Amino acid sequence: MSVKYLSTCAPLKGEVEMNGAGNLMDFLDEPFPDVGTYEDFHTIDWLREKSRDTDRHRKITSKSKESFWELIKSLLDAWSGWVVMLLIGLLSGTLAGVIDLAVDWMTDLKEGVCLSAFWYSHEQCCWTSNETTFDDRDKCPQWQKWAELMTGHAEGAGAYVLNYFLYVLWALLFSFLAVSLVRVFAPYACGSGIPEIKTILSGFIIRGYLGKWTLLIKTVTLVLAVSSGLSLGKEGPLVHVACCCGNLFCSLFSKYSKNEGKRREVLSAAAAAGVSVAFGAPIGGVLFSLEEVSYYFPLKTLWRSFFAALVAAFTLRSINPFGNSRLVLFYVEYHTPWYMAELVPFILLGVFGGLWGTLFIRANIAWCRRRKTTQLGKYPVLEVIAVTGITAVLAFPNPYTRRSTSELISELFNDCGALESSQLCDYINNPNMSRPVDDIPDRPAGPGVYNALWQLALALVFKIVITIFTFGMKIPSGLFIPSMAVGAIAGRIVGIAVEQMAYHHHDWIIFKNWCRPGADCVTPGLYAMVGAAACLGGVTRMTVSLVVIMFELTGGLEYIVPLMAAAVTSKWVADAFGKEGIYESHIQLNGYPYLDVRDEFTHRTLATDVMRPRRNDPPLAVLTQDTTTVEDVEALIKDTDYNGFPVVVSRESERLIGFVQRRDLTLAIKTARQKQDGVVSSSVVYFTEDAPQLPASNPQPLKLRRILNLSPFTVTDHTPMETVVDIFRKLGLRQCLVTRSGRLLGIITKKDVLRHMAQMMNQDPESIMFN
Amino acid sequence: MSVKYLSTCAPLKGEVEMNGAGNLMDFLDEPFPDVGTYEDFHTIDWLREKSRDTDRHRKITSKSKESFWELIKSLLDAWSGWVVMLLIGLLSGTLAGVIDLAVDWMTDLKEGVCLSAFWYSHEQCCWTSNETTFDDRDKCPQWQKWAELMTGHAEGAGAYVLNYFLYVLWALLFSFLAVSLVRVFAPYACGSGIPEIKTILSGFIIRGYLGKWTLLIKTVTLVLAVSSGLSLGKEGPLVHVACCCGNLFCSLFSKYSKNEGKRREVLSAAAAAGVSVAFGAPIGGVLFSLEEVSYYFPLKTLWRSFFAALVAAFTLRSINPFGNSRLVLFYVEYHTPWYMAELVPFILLGVFGGLWGTLFIRANIAWCRRRKTTQLGKYPVLEVIAVTGITAVLAFPNPYTRRSTSELISELFNDCGALESSQLCDYINNPNMSRPVDDIPDRPAGPGVYNALWQLALALVFKIVITIFTFGMKIPSGLFIPSMAVGAIAGRIVGIAVEQMAYHHHDWIIFKNWCRPGADCVTPGLYAMVGAAACLGGVTRMTVSLVVIMFELTGGLEYIVPLMAAAVTSKWVADAFGKEGIYESHIQLNGYPYLDVRDEFTHRTLATDVMRPRRNDPPLAVLTQDTTTVEDVEALIKDTDYNGFPVVVSRESERLIGFVQRRDLTLAIKTARQKQDGVVSSSVVYFTEDAPQLPASNPQPLKLRRILNLSPFTVTDHTPMETVVDIFRKLGLRQCLVTRSGRLLGIITKKDVLRHMAQMMNQDPESIMFN
Repeated sequence: MSVKYLSTCAPLKGEVEMNGAGNLMDFLDEPFPDVGTYEDFHTIDWLREKSRDTDRHRKITSKSKESFWELIKSLLDAWSGWVVMLLIGLLSGTLAGVIDLAVDWMTDLKEGVCLSAFWYSHEQCCWTSNETTFDDRDKCPQWQKWAELMTGHAEGAGAYVLNYFLYVLWALLFSFLAVSLVRVFAPYACGSGIPEIKTILSGFIIRGYLGKWTLLIKTVTLVLAVSSGLSLGKEGPLVHVACCCGNLFCSLFSKYSKNEGKRREVLSAAAAAGVSVAFGAPIGGVLFSLEEVSYYFPLKTLWRSFFAALVAAFTLRSINPFGNSRLVLFYVEYHTPWYMAELVPFILLGVFGGLWGTLFIRANIAWCRRRKTTQLGKYPVLEVIAVTGITAVLAFPNPYTRRSTSELISELFNDCGALESSQLCDYINNPNMSRPVDDIPDRPAGPGVYNALWQLALALVFKIVITIFTFGMKIPSGLFIPSMAVGAIAGRIVGIAVEQMAYHHHDWIIFKNWCRPGADCVTPGLYAMVGAAACLGGVTRMTVSLVVIMFELTGGLEYIVPLMAAAVTSKWVADAFGKEGIYESHIQLNGYPYLDVRDEFTHRTLATDVMRPRRNDPPLAVLTQDTTTVEDVEALIKDTDYNGFPVVVSRESERLIGFVQRRDLTLAIKTARQKQDGVVSSSVVYFTEDAPQLPASNPQPLKLRRILNLSPFTVTDHTPMETVVDIFRKLGLRQCLVTRSGRLLGIITKKDVLRHMAQMMNQDPESIMFN
Repeated sequence: MSVKYLSTCAPLKGEVEMNGAGNLMDFLDEPFPDVGTYEDFHTIDWLREKSRDTDRHRKITSKSKESFWELIKSLLDAWSGWVVMLLIGLLSGTLAGVIDLAVDWMTDLKEGVCLSAFWYSHEQCCWTSNETTFDDRDKCPQWQKWAELMTGHAEGAGAYVLNYFLYVLWALLFSFLAVSLVRVFAPYACGSGIPEIKTILSGFIIRGYLGKWTLLIKTVTLVLAVSSGLSLGKEGPLVHVACCCGNLFCSLFSKYSKNEGKRREVLSAAAAAGVSVAFGAPIGGVLFSLEEVSYYFPLKTLWRSFFAALVAAFTLRSINPFGNSRLVLFYVEYHTPWYMAELVPFILLGVFGGLWGTLFIRANIAWCRRRKTTQLGKYPVLEVIAVTGITAVLAFPNPYTRRSTSELISELFNDCGALESSQLCDYINNPNMSRPVDDIPDRPAGPGVYNALWQLALALVFKIVITIFTFGMKIPSGLFIPSMAVGAIAGRIVGIAVEQMAYHHHDWIIFKNWCRPGADCVTPGLYAMVGAAACLGGVTRMTVSLVVIMFELTGGLEYIVPLMAAAVTSKWVADAFGKEGIYESHIQLNGYPYLDVRDEFTHRTLATDVMRPRRNDPPLAVLTQDTTTVEDVEALIKDTDYNGFPVVVSRESERLIGFVQRRDLTLAIKTARQKQDGVVSSSVVYFTEDAPQLPASNPQPLKLRRILNLSPFTVTDHTPMETVVDIFRKLGLRQCLVTRSGRLLGIITKKDVLRHMAQMMNQDPESIMFN
């Protein structure tokens, strides 16, 4: 029954143990396995965790009245949640800043080096330069391309080829380092991590996934992977990094380290902090955590997540990695309004986003499945090297793919101001026009713009294809940035098209009302942003959090309607082809036991159809309260692999009195056999309150009432499965017993529920499409 | 057992029926009471509602395959949620706009009238005026004060007295109209409505509370109440108005009108739309609904709420009631940064907010309790008249209380620009200084500022005292605005103090680092905003939504840290004196059965301690599956007032087979007696699957299995109450049966849980303080 859960990009379980990463310092581990802990790859029982925490809390509260010291301790305990949040915010903000700076430097290292100080990135290097005109901002004597440095010639075919060669070489070096580090030190550091975090937050144990080593290696390899120029982003992995920070700080307080439920509250907040620094959007981060990754999100967590997200954003702003006191490279502020008629292209972009989302999810899942099932999966390093090589070779000639994807997005989002030197802003200016600082009227496109359009179209095709193969490789890889890039390119192209159409055809009926000659009516940058939101929405199916993140990027309520129109359209279009976003698809691909809150179960099945034992199965394995011997129990444990056993009054009456966990039972018997005199194989196990007085000749009884859960969850056999699913979801159960008129009939576990849901969905998938 | 639930401000139930409002067109009513509906003042069963909706949905889906028309119908059904949201957004946005315009006009009517067009407010009247200098903005010939119009003299003691008299008279007239309309037509229109909406959303039925009449009367009387100059706001009532809109549009679709669970999803979204238009904060509105009012908030609702909130905000912006294309009067944009050292006064403002919150809640609840229990409650009209009179008489002489509270807040929030003519901006300018448009350095305060400080201090005391007596009267009254006003006044005073201190003592160590001479370092308006957030937080205990609302008001991430510092401090200070916000306190005062999600239950009691029957009570009233006669059932219904009865196999075995609702049982027997031949008093009621074949001589059996709930919720007697509370909360149960080893022992209802929680809290209130 033990299913092997494999991450798309993580190695087989055996492999983990083989190369030693499995038993490295691991913060999900406890020093001595004890009653009440969970095994790896098992589901936690939320109700039990909650009630353990209440016990702990009650104990501290009652102790706090005893002495002043205990009062201080209880106050410390009460505040530990906030302390953890503060630490998470500080560390994840710092890490994000360091990653940003390192990526910036290493991306530029592929092209050249700063002579005055080699640790400066291109931009930092030229800050101190005297040549401050905007056209030459990129050219300053201190910064030299490799060819210039090595041969002395900055121009010419030879220099181009040498630069090309070194660009590819650096890319290969970075990606080789990244994949090697991941393979050797922390196999869990690959991928975006969000599917696994969703699964962990829903109550699954994956030891080491959020460990110290994963944190360290993921941070380092993330820098390498992004710098290598592969079509991947740092946003998803930053969430994973922040969650690792959360897990790290949990270990400071036993309140969190010893309770899997409380730990998950911290991790939810950490995820919010991760998105907060990834996008500079604290509110969006909280909503992302709420909407996308979290499972159990009480109001207390909402508030704390917000705090952690703010601290993280604030820390990052203090580091100021982009030198513009913004948290992200692609922060923009638009000043022109949008018009109702523009909703048409925005909605079209939404449709594009939805289609891209569908295409991407299907193709990527197909490719990942192929990787899992064929020889391909055996050569992860080779795969990464090959994809990096192809990416670098194809990316260099096109200026829009050569630079880092964030820079590309930033340029696409930008409005063409008066001082913009980019090719995309090469419009033909009216010589009579005095140049105002802002608010430049629409102008005819110059040759640079047409040139850029071609290059962008090529970049679009390239990004679409290469991203499908990149996401899921054995390196840290997020897909927010590539998705946004695809959308931003498409959006900018549409935006320029609409702009030129409006300029050349002022008299068309659709433009007549809002776009007079000489007015600044179309902002192509806004189209890029709308396109980015649409594509991101199509892939992830985020809704509110997506719009809020974009809103925080633009800093104005003004553009919420366009963004929302695109996001809704994209979600509807994508949902029409399949309900699942990329994260859910990967969860399913890996077979994690994840009970999605959003899937509505609408079938007419009853608990009796799902429970085990089935009609022809052997009867349910139960213990009786006062007739089972130690030997019987041991045999039962040996013969079955159930996680627990119901305890009944007698086999005849089948009246349920409780439920005992397999792990607890094993531990208790082991301890009793070692320490308790007279407990032998023929000892009777008593789950009753009092064991009868036995004559001394009989073997000593073993009293196990204290490990018996006296309040197991039961439903009747007539309970509709939709109610059962609801109960499992809302109460976070591991299992539920099924009774009929007080008699124990069977058991339903979380896996039974998941299996049943999957079955029903496949039979009748369209019934859940619109709801 | 039937408890009468009385709103603080609503009349006795008998009174409602007496004056006819109770049976006016009411949208919570269904034409024919049927099996599966609820009685007034009863709790709904969320699980049952959900499963009924799934049934409905399943039926529509299976039908949709039959014909094209059914497919269209199923699509319409799937989209009806969005249609309802659109309609709610449109109507609540429109109503908010109309209310804003009407309030603006009527507030000014108290002072004077526009000669060119009497329906113009002061500002609108003077827009067309030629005298456009800022100093004289308020004086234009078209606008005449009453004294000027009637006597021809604008100045002098006589004119002042006449204006004073007419101001009071208008105020009295407006408030008299308001209270009379409320009393005669819609008693439920009084108060802010948020406590009742919270209760309704948690699954309680209050018929007519969200009816058409309430909507109409609340809208009209809200305008009157706000215009009368009483210390109340329109924000809370706007949420009620939006919820009434939501309820109204629910009746268009049977999906929502026939299902109390689905209806509540719509109402949650409507509440978000209400806050969205009240504060011009769509995201804040959604978070308010999530954090403050909603009980069951699935992700689908999040998304739809957001849509409704956006549509409402967009509609309001199209109406543009303030002529500044902003949604609220007090929208501000600051440009100066804040400094770390300023956190000290911000935190002090937080402390003030917390103390004010505690004071207000205690005093207001004490006063409301007095109103409920003494003669005072008998004369609501007189009370309103008296409070209005006192308010108007005291408010007129002070310019800061004479104007509307929103205008006051707007002025307090504002930064003193170069063109500001207000008394608060009467700083002494350096004559050498050229006046830049923005960024004015700190200056010494002039006499006007000192004068304003005194008046503000008086206004502060006045507002604090009068608000306590105003909130809870029989007119629509929100307390967001008065709370914010208190905080804004206090904040502005602190802000000016810090500003002057920094100006005069540049060399003090605390100012040295950030406040050089000639710099613009302190923004008193920001202090006002922080103070407003702190006071609002102290009263309502909102956290994230509060910060987000304020963030949307200022439109910049820049000030989130000060706002949050104040909000957190205020909440902590207020929580130290009592966990409950004003809404929870009013819910408790009125005895609504509201199970707060935030109260953590941490006591060591078990289900067996709470269930009925208690030790010495008569045994539980149960039905048997095949031995009870119709007569027995009728006697049981007559003798008891339980909402339902468990059905067992036999009284001896006590094995539970199901649960039957009292209402369903009554209806079924009534119908059977009327329509089914041979069902007489001695007929046996069968809950089994098959009734035995009886000889013709015996009376015809009555088969009632179809009204039997075969999956009643059960817990064992050993279940800790914290788990039971959790189950009640998360699954929204009405009752839960208690068993021990398969035997039925007793029953726990939602009211039992609430009663037990209240008991335990009173015994040991500090145990829940920090969590």
